[in-house]
Amino acid sequence: MTTRAECVARDAGDPLAPLRSQFAMSGADAEGVIYLDGNSLGALPAATAARVAAVVADEWGVGLIRSWNTPRLGGPHSGQTGWIDLGPRIANKIATLIGANPGEAVVADSTSINLYKVLSAAMAIAKTRGDSVRTILSEGTNFPTDLYIADTIAREHGFNLVLVEPDEIEAQLVRGVAIVMLTHVNYRTGRMHRMAEVTRAAHHAGALMVWDLAHSAGAVPVDLNGTDADFAVGCGYKYLNGGPGAPAFAWAHARHVAWMDQEQWRQPLSGWLGHAAPFAFTPDYRPGAGMSRFICGTPPMLSLAALECGVETLLAAAPYGGIAAIREKSIALTDLFIALVESRCAGHGLTLVTPRVIEDRGSQASFAHATGGYQVMQALIARGVIGDFRAPDILRFGFTPLYTRFVDVWDAVAHLEQVMTTGEWQEPRFNVRAAVT
Amino acid sequence: MTTRAECVARDAGDPLAPLRSQFAMSGADAEGVIYLDGNSLGALPAATAARVAAVVADEWGVGLIRSWNTPRLGGPHSGQTGWIDLGPRIANKIATLIGANPGEAVVADSTSINLYKVLSAAMAIAKTRGDSVRTILSEGTNFPTDLYIADTIAREHGFNLVLVEPDEIEAQLVRGVAIVMLTHVNYRTGRMHRMAEVTRAAHHAGALMVWDLAHSAGAVPVDLNGTDADFAVGCGYKYLNGGPGAPAFAWAHARHVAWMDQEQWRQPLSGWLGHAAPFAFTPDYRPGAGMSRFICGTPPMLSLAALECGVETLLAAAPYGGIAAIREKSIALTDLFIALVESRCAGHGLTLVTPRVIEDRGSQASFAHATGGYQVMQALIARGVIGDFRAPDILRFGFTPLYTRFVDVWDAVAHLEQVMTTGEWQEPRFNVRAAVT
Repeated sequence: MTTRAECVARDAGDPLAPLRSQFAMSGADAEGVIYLDGNSLGALPAATAARVAAVVADEWGVGLIRSWNTPRLGGPHSGQTGWIDLGPRIANKIATLIGANPGEAVVADSTSINLYKVLSAAMAIAKTRGDSVRTILSEGTNFPTDLYIADTIAREHGFNLVLVEPDEIEAQLVRGVAIVMLTHVNYRTGRMHRMAEVTRAAHHAGALMVWDLAHSAGAVPVDLNGTDADFAVGCGYKYLNGGPGAPAFAWAHARHVAWMDQEQWRQPLSGWLGHAAPFAFTPDYRPGAGMSRFICGTPPMLSLAALECGVETLLAAAPYGGIAAIREKSIALTDLFIALVESRCAGHGLTLVTPRVIEDRGSQASFAHATGGYQVMQALIARGVIGDFRAPDILRFGFTPLYTRFVDVWDAVAHLEQVMTTGEWQEPRFNVRAAVT
Repeated sequence: MTTRAECVARDAGDPLAPLRSQFAMSGADAEGVIYLDGNSLGALPAATAARVAAVVADEWGVGLIRSWNTPRLGGPHSGQTGWIDLGPRIANKIATLIGANPGEAVVADSTSINLYKVLSAAMAIAKTRGDSVRTILSEGTNFPTDLYIADTIAREHGFNLVLVEPDEIEAQLVRGVAIVMLTHVNYRTGRMHRMAEVTRAAHHAGALMVWDLAHSAGAVPVDLNGTDADFAVGCGYKYLNGGPGAPAFAWAHARHVAWMDQEQWRQPLSGWLGHAAPFAFTPDYRPGAGMSRFICGTPPMLSLAALECGVETLLAAAPYGGIAAIREKSIALTDLFIALVESRCAGHGLTLVTPRVIEDRGSQASFAHATGGYQVMQALIARGVIGDFRAPDILRFGFTPLYTRFVDVWDAVAHLEQVMTTGEWQEPRFNVRAAVT
């Protein structure tokens, strides 16, 4: 059986350990907090405060409108280029984390809005294929906003959204599907789809494959081109550590971008910054080349600058083995957490819902508790162990190898054990439901 | 004839003068810069840096995911509520500037995206009116992104976008129009529509009236309910001083909101945060009550917090006469600028394109220069007088009474006079066109 001392030793030998110093929580403020919710909101990088302060005080305050084109002041935290280049620069950095080439991704808006854009493209392409299949296939347990967006746009365009369980996808593909839309790692269960296999099956059935990478980009290896995916979107504020509500990203395979260019296809949110010549201010819309047409309006520059700092924390892992090393540590952390909970909290009604098979699991572990899931999580948070609760019964714990330590896993389970064995979670104060995060 | 000393005296007697201290530029950094581009990007409020720093370091860094629901730390710059309440709180503050009631506006996304949402609503309502008119009427000189968005969504829904000159609107209304979409103050010329009259004419013709307040909210009195408008959108980073790419806002008249509620109408970008119960994570979309359905995804919290500081600079004018006093000073500044340019720069080919009639003018003055508009502006910017250039020939100067002084107007014209009389603008260095802001 593992001991706390062994966890401390594993941290000491962890090749990724130096990367924790990239985060503000590595300082004194975080004493007593064990953060296992980076899958919902990534932790604050240490570099972000100074960068955002420079954008505010120097670039906006002094540079004013000039900062759109002019790198400001040249101080250590100032951007190297004008604001106009910031989005494309960040997109190219994200591209390296998702198996995409430079120029293939854009950073813009929110994940929901980007999904609206790529589904619009996928439906337009599906219509060119000349058959009558008008089905978008997804899972009923997909992240709700994906289903909301897909449902609305499907109705608008005469498509039909079919929701199935994960193990029913293959059967539904046989019946005919135009677009398969899945989240790579499920937000509640942590189940991960095998991207290559599912994409191959979709293509075999004549369908386009749309991936939501919200819970996988930055956490597990993603190879969009290698798996021949068609479209993808993802989130900037989870494993990319971009800060609350950071802009999101979108990607399309080069074959579809070529089609868009050829057809002069426009996405529905055809705003000025996606125009071929945004500063010409012509009255007629002409989509920008390639993926630039997926940009709409002016990006929120403060949040965008913070996103770059977040993405940089992942790029900094390259000399330490990059995303493969992150994945390896993630598996070790998650394995340890599952083993410790199942041994030390046995008999308290906690049931693992995350797949045990490594290939089917993202960077989180979720346990169901039939009667007290919400209260148990509240009791943990009161102790400084921050995971989250997802209705109706899921305790969700995310592991972010850039800053989560083995000793954090040990201590978190120690707290959980105490919460369960003392019955502390049944105290009335843990049953007060505010709006749940 | 006015003198510089008289301008200094006017500033000394200006009741709004104390409000300039709300801006960072009131400090030493701004020495030598005269900022006449607040109509493109509002200046940095002095309070913003500390507020954004608190959001980054305290709310995100320490509060982490808990900050969605929990006011963090309670320091002087920390939000009084969780992040979840920030958007609605700011929207209610903006509402006071545009003649809207609490709960009638939302803050979300960009102006372009919000226009997509309200046009979608307007088209849905127009279709219920049972006639066959499917025309959206706008001006060919409207801000391009409005036209791009309208063109695309019109095509999607079988509507027809008709673009006319400002003085042709009435004639077109006679021919039948479903929706009139106009920007209250034109971004190039500074021409302002008479909101009440145009709205009345639109309604008389059976059309819905959609206003873009990008260049008027915070600069001129706007009374959406008083003029019986139907829909409006606007920008957070111009006269609202929210910072580059700040989130935008949207508004609908209560009669249309009632219809949306009754019909359970959903806007196309039906994301999770516009759901009736966003944290219930149900797979089916149910639009939130009222305007909350116009929210889509997670807002960019750093940029959103900065927007609140910007809006506060306008609310702080209330004891000094509020928007009426701002308008009065704006007219005085603009009148002075026009008079000085026309007297001191006469004979140099500068032609006023902004209407002289006060009721037809926003808070800017634009001059055309047939051959050297771009170079003249570059020469001015090199001297620290920051306006901007809009193709093909417009020199644009914005006046923001919260921080623009009469002496700034004097000094700006003095620089312009020197640029013109010396021929400095014809130096080759002012003809280097980078991407134009």
